[in-house]
Amino acid sequence: MRLLNIDDLEDLTLGATLLGTGGGGDPFIAKLMARQAIEDYGPVRIVDPSELDDTAQVVTIAVVGAPTVIIEKIPSGTEYVAAVKALASYLGRDIDAIMPVEVGGLNTLIPLAVAAELGLPCVDADGMRRAFPQVEMTTFTLAGLSASPMSLADEKGNRIAFETTSNQVAERLVRSSAMSLGLANALAAYPMTIAQVKQSAIVGSMQFCSDVGNRLRAVQRNEPGAWEDFFSLTGGSTLFEGKIIDLDRRTTTGFARGTVVLEAFDDPTRTMRIEIQNELLLAIEDGRIVVTPPDLICMLDFETAEPITTETLAYGQRVTVLGLPCAPEWRREGMLDVVGPRAFGYDVDYVNLGGVR
Amino acid sequence: MRLLNIDDLEDLTLGATLLGTGGGGDPFIAKLMARQAIEDYGPVRIVDPSELDDTAQVVTIAVVGAPTVIIEKIPSGTEYVAAVKALASYLGRDIDAIMPVEVGGLNTLIPLAVAAELGLPCVDADGMRRAFPQVEMTTFTLAGLSASPMSLADEKGNRIAFETTSNQVAERLVRSSAMSLGLANALAAYPMTIAQVKQSAIVGSMQFCSDVGNRLRAVQRNEPGAWEDFFSLTGGSTLFEGKIIDLDRRTTTGFARGTVVLEAFDDPTRTMRIEIQNELLLAIEDGRIVVTPPDLICMLDFETAEPITTETLAYGQRVTVLGLPCAPEWRREGMLDVVGPRAFGYDVDYVNLGGVR
Repeated sequence: MRLLNIDDLEDLTLGATLLGTGGGGDPFIAKLMARQAIEDYGPVRIVDPSELDDTAQVVTIAVVGAPTVIIEKIPSGTEYVAAVKALASYLGRDIDAIMPVEVGGLNTLIPLAVAAELGLPCVDADGMRRAFPQVEMTTFTLAGLSASPMSLADEKGNRIAFETTSNQVAERLVRSSAMSLGLANALAAYPMTIAQVKQSAIVGSMQFCSDVGNRLRAVQRNEPGAWEDFFSLTGGSTLFEGKIIDLDRRTTTGFARGTVVLEAFDDPTRTMRIEIQNELLLAIEDGRIVVTPPDLICMLDFETAEPITTETLAYGQRVTVLGLPCAPEWRREGMLDVVGPRAFGYDVDYVNLGGVR
Repeated sequence: MRLLNIDDLEDLTLGATLLGTGGGGDPFIAKLMARQAIEDYGPVRIVDPSELDDTAQVVTIAVVGAPTVIIEKIPSGTEYVAAVKALASYLGRDIDAIMPVEVGGLNTLIPLAVAAELGLPCVDADGMRRAFPQVEMTTFTLAGLSASPMSLADEKGNRIAFETTSNQVAERLVRSSAMSLGLANALAAYPMTIAQVKQSAIVGSMQFCSDVGNRLRAVQRNEPGAWEDFFSLTGGSTLFEGKIIDLDRRTTTGFARGTVVLEAFDDPTRTMRIEIQNELLLAIEDGRIVVTPPDLICMLDFETAEPITTETLAYGQRVTVLGLPCAPEWRREGMLDVVGPRAFGYDVDYVNLGGVR
């Protein structure tokens, strides 16, 4: 067990922004929520699954909706605790620990605020170790766990409890309900025991996220060997350096979709196109597909190495594109069905980035 | 208390088809469900609210969706009992009686099947005494009662429980969830006590519906004085006799919408236009608005006096259009906000049909 304090939020937030792969919502707002909660209720106990009883009840908590809406609608915060309490009531049992569903984007930090307020530990694990746009895109789904019963809540007091026959149906229902409730709602989902966490989750993902943030900060400070450290930790590499020459974004059916086109600094005939569905999902260089989900496409400001979220993309922006391999826990039977390119509607084959982490 | 048996279903179904005002789903399928349930479980006890304890727990049960879809998707039946049981579980108490939310369309008969299977009485009351396309369009809403907690269920095993801040939000959420679940789902809603039924419901609406069916059958048999009896019971009148010269129907955002235009038999320069949103909602004769919600527009086959549902409308069809005043329980402060023409998006004033019933 370690105590997560306000000072620890900086690395975690920077790492979460990078692992958000352009989406997942800007963690800045969630950092403010987590900071306020730690000030009010004290530091959060971050625990390894091995520190809790196998029968302990865990739930994930997250905001669902379109990032473009979420940043315009500062969460009041009450809906997150309300969603957890509604799920506990629906399950008819107490919740023993909170867990992020995705470590990447603002959903990395919201569970900390909720854990602080409820006085519960937060499990150092998740189901993505990056951001993904859909509820069912988790290693939990891969392991056959159900996202439901789950509870959706808004800031006005509306509550919905779902029990679904598949996590794909769960996603569809949550999405349509969130669209009706203003596209930024709290979702308490994936109730499971610690025994199930051990079998299905990506353990250590919050620590990994803090470490990523820490190494990236060293890069930003131009410390010697910082890039090597960063790539050694993440198994990633630089894919492209160039400027944005075309940009198309739209919010449709509950997602922020778009396309961004880059031109290389060193060769104007070299271009990279990146497809967006909340997150940066597909990178294509001169017609050749170079990164596909579940591997990560991360975009940084070329000068400052600050991660760029899709909502702040701008024409003419100078960027560095990184490719990072997904968490090794993804690599099991069925991965491509849950989070491969075709799960996102891209009719292309998975390209194995072949990294070590 | 009276026992409703298979023989009683004929009048009730005919009345329900008429009070469906062209929508509400063809009651024929629901009649088959009710008949099967009565064969399996015995006749249904129809009770007046005064026969139950004031604290008895009542819930309404209905199918929600677009009639055009409902008739293509024979209900398996299991979802209705599942929705009631899910709501009971959510409320944490037993259900003492079932009640229709609308007496009009197939939702008149589904509660009978559910009551038979669960061995519960069915309260002779409802919240519309006609069909309306939206969940919040009830005298219950008018009386300030909440539609939630409510449970939505499909035939595959998906279950959703809602707790909403208003019945308008409830409608929006149910509609979007039903669209995600195939547009024909079971909704258990408006949990209330018998004391609340007495304050808010239209009591006696099932008996009224049976009587309407009985009188209409006499009309169909050309019995002397049958029309007079029918109009004396309903307070209605004949508005138009003519043939369909134009027809436009489409299923959008969960509703079957459309427009039908009639030309009078006796004068080809006289036309009537009727606007449809699942139900026949607005009748306009030569530019003059003659019937608005909540009053009823009923369309009959000109020769057989058989009620016509919007999904069976056809070019060239010869029809009689009746206007019937709404149930007197509607006539209280706030009626137009809940079910007046503007509640359906028609920017016109209410035209009081001025009938007696």
